[in-house]
Amino acid sequence: MFSELEKTSVFKGFTTAEIIKLLSSVHYRLHTYNPDDVIAYACDRCDDLFLLLQGEIRGEMNGYNDKNIVISEICAPDTFAEAFLFADNNELLINIISTTKTKILIISKSELLKMLNSNTKILNNYLNATSNRFVLISEKLKFLMFKTVKGKIANYILDLEREHSGKTYFPLGRNQEGLAALFGITRPALTRNLSQLKKDNIIEIKHKEVRILDRKRLVGYLS
Amino acid sequence: MFSELEKTSVFKGFTTAEIIKLLSSVHYRLHTYNPDDVIAYACDRCDDLFLLLQGEIRGEMNGYNDKNIVISEICAPDTFAEAFLFADNNELLINIISTTKTKILIISKSELLKMLNSNTKILNNYLNATSNRFVLISEKLKFLMFKTVKGKIANYILDLEREHSGKTYFPLGRNQEGLAALFGITRPALTRNLSQLKKDNIIEIKHKEVRILDRKRLVGYLS
Repeated sequence: MFSELEKTSVFKGFTTAEIIKLLSSVHYRLHTYNPDDVIAYACDRCDDLFLLLQGEIRGEMNGYNDKNIVISEICAPDTFAEAFLFADNNELLINIISTTKTKILIISKSELLKMLNSNTKILNNYLNATSNRFVLISEKLKFLMFKTVKGKIANYILDLEREHSGKTYFPLGRNQEGLAALFGITRPALTRNLSQLKKDNIIEIKHKEVRILDRKRLVGYLS
Repeated sequence: MFSELEKTSVFKGFTTAEIIKLLSSVHYRLHTYNPDDVIAYACDRCDDLFLLLQGEIRGEMNGYNDKNIVISEICAPDTFAEAFLFADNNELLINIISTTKTKILIISKSELLKMLNSNTKILNNYLNATSNRFVLISEKLKFLMFKTVKGKIANYILDLEREHSGKTYFPLGRNQEGLAALFGITRPALTRNLSQLKKDNIIEIKHKEVRILDRKRLVGYLS
């Protein structure tokens, strides 16, 4: 049952035997849920780390108009709550729902702290996992600050240019699916705006590489 | 020099003597900077925790059009970089500039890990600090997802209603300054939109308490 945990970022580099040993030193609970069971509600305090052993869960934001918006989906094996667990305000912003039949191992904050303190490698893994979540959300925030799709694209491409300074063509880095997700927009909206920028001779995209043709107009989209 | 660190979230609850003892167990560097010195550049990897002992620093985003945007300002005593230090991609998104004469204590990631592992209280403090940063940025992200100012206000007020369920009037929780910052908008834009919502008899605000008059129209602003 625990062998899957080797694949999570928190237990990266540990063997199943080592994971069992680590877990045996702390108290934990095992819960199973059926499809559409609510695991936790938005506004509940979250004082536990969830280790998703089997199945799939989703986070839904209450939409107020009878439509809930799915914010995130997590498939086993993975962890949930690690990035905000220790916050002063650790209330959930979303409802956590079981999508399939799931099995979850639950460790309280105080027990987790004990485990992290017992081993430098797991502490490093845990800090790595929380930092990665922070970076992901920071990047999302950065792109949301640009109001127009062309502003987001311009900022992304100008960042790439700086990263590959001196080069005329540089790799786009992500496919259109990935870019749309990063910008928080739909795939068709991205395609439409990229096409316009190409048609207006502002950028050129060839073999997944991009080239800036009209830097001044591209910069203009930032404001 | 270290007595100020008592006031930081990472060293919360420690006496100056305890802080000196903790720091004496690890290697650190002390740097001083003059006003407008660049401490670190955007895209640099950040492998150190910064403890700002004296002065003030700011984070600036390269604006591409010769205008840099100040994203954050940090005054001593405080820490910087703790939330993303351990990420796989720990490149800075912003330039770090010294605003005044500053004194900074710098601890490398590996030395920090040693210190966190030596003491459960400092580990708890550190996880608390990083989680708090994550929650703050998550809340910002949530409000940026609503495209209109009225959408942001509607979401905020409907969240308050749920939090104080059963009550007709509930406290607004933040002043207009705080609300504008949370929504990422200017104060006048907030005031203008709040006034319209009041004029249209959708909400009422009295003595820093809010009451929903027309729930259906308020919900309508969410989509």
